Amino acid sequence: MEIRTAAKSAEYLPILHAMKESNPRLKLLDVGAGSGSMSASFAQIIGPEGHVTAVDINPVVIPRAKIVAEKWGVTNISFQTADAYKLPFEDATFDVVHCHQVLNHNKDQWEILREMLRVTKPGGVVAAREGDLETEVIWPPLPGVVKFHFDLEVKLITGRGGCATSGRQLLSWALRAGAKRSQIMTSFGTWSYTEPEDRKFWASGMAGIALGPIVRERNIKSGITTEEMNEMRDGWEEWMKRDDAVLAQLHGQIIIRK
Amino acid sequence: MEIRTAAKSAEYLPILHAMKESNPRLKLLDVGAGSGSMSASFAQIIGPEGHVTAVDINPVVIPRAKIVAEKWGVTNISFQTADAYKLPFEDATFDVVHCHQVLNHNKDQWEILREMLRVTKPGGVVAAREGDLETEVIWPPLPGVVKFHFDLEVKLITGRGGCATSGRQLLSWALRAGAKRSQIMTSFGTWSYTEPEDRKFWASGMAGIALGPIVRERNIKSGITTEEMNEMRDGWEEWMKRDDAVLAQLHGQIIIRK
Repeated sequence: MEIRTAAKSAEYLPILHAMKESNPRLKLLDVGAGSGSMSASFAQIIGPEGHVTAVDINPVVIPRAKIVAEKWGVTNISFQTADAYKLPFEDATFDVVHCHQVLNHNKDQWEILREMLRVTKPGGVVAAREGDLETEVIWPPLPGVVKFHFDLEVKLITGRGGCATSGRQLLSWALRAGAKRSQIMTSFGTWSYTEPEDRKFWASGMAGIALGPIVRERNIKSGITTEEMNEMRDGWEEWMKRDDAVLAQLHGQIIIRK
Repeated sequence: MEIRTAAKSAEYLPILHAMKESNPRLKLLDVGAGSGSMSASFAQIIGPEGHVTAVDINPVVIPRAKIVAEKWGVTNISFQTADAYKLPFEDATFDVVHCHQVLNHNKDQWEILREMLRVTKPGGVVAAREGDLETEVIWPPLPGVVKFHFDLEVKLITGRGGCATSGRQLLSWALRAGAKRSQIMTSFGTWSYTEPEDRKFWASGMAGIALGPIVRERNIKSGITTEEMNEMRDGWEEWMKRDDAVLAQLHGQIIIRK
């Protein structure tokens, strides 16, 4: 996921730039920072007087995210482990509180949004962007690749209590989190892989991450056969070579002004 | 469909502006012009020295499209009836040949693209944008509205030989039409209704167009009951009032440089 940067994935950047103009000391919280590439790009955007706090529930990702920030020469950033349902911060601490592809992996998503709103200053914003996994389009519809997405990826996420239709539900979750409709801006964006280099990047990543030795073992436990996994791997290998190959997904985006 | 303008629906506008800069006498063909609102907005963009030819297979829409152009004060435009599979123009006549939500409604879509390429000048472009109907997301998933989209709209289009997955197939059709991969730029965009006014516009349009007296009769012939149609109408009426309502669809876009 190193390819995720704010410029690629956050369509609310104009608002971030405008906020930075009027306040160069922005405090931004990135919830579920993962690889840290988005957090680091936010730190670059808000500049040396601002500060990014990057949190993730998984302590394993923190050292990796720190390396990304160091590699990018970003120093106005700090990292810590934190539970998105119980953020270890006072009310009204941050100007911007952001998450990306985090609600997808959790249940009771409005509780995370409520918590994000709690730690946001009045006048600040909560920004979220989440895929809508069920809308993924894959062409050509090679059986291994389609099976990978719908029978492995989507089932893995929903099996853990996550959600395959987050993009379309963001607005309803924001309302349930206590925001008024007039505070919320909602829109849709896309994410796609169509060019040869991008296709190769994505397909080899998917085949590697999801069909590597550790995951294979877990897949077998959940009833996916070795034959099916080989079909998925072969599917990705064929897909990345096809001139007519495209992969795209609809994403939902909300900005809540507190 | 009056709301469709080039500014809203054509993400390839930067290319059109660049082409106009280097050639103020652009000749643009809009295939399947429908209501004519996109054709008229293209005519505005390319300016008085350029010319738009707007064609549609349905003679009924031509006078309506003319009225749109007159209302907008656009005079650098002409209209005619034409079959997209057999365009009544010489090879290499136009600088830009465009279609939007046209391939969706037809079969053997690559033949239309091949014909569009034929009438394009070397150095010109073919531009197409088509929805991918199967990706439509509707929240809340009110049964009447979901049924309207998947059991009425999609089945109507596919029943006539059209395609509910055009967005993802544009690239493959362009290749089949004879374009080389290196000539094609492909991307994805969205189309959505989320704000109160937009929701009302769309929902009342859908209920009105698709459930009006003529269509009701056709629906009944194709096995849709009066109860189901009432459920659809009630669904749209509820949907437009809901604060948490969103509707979005992934669109595919290609630009082929000839």
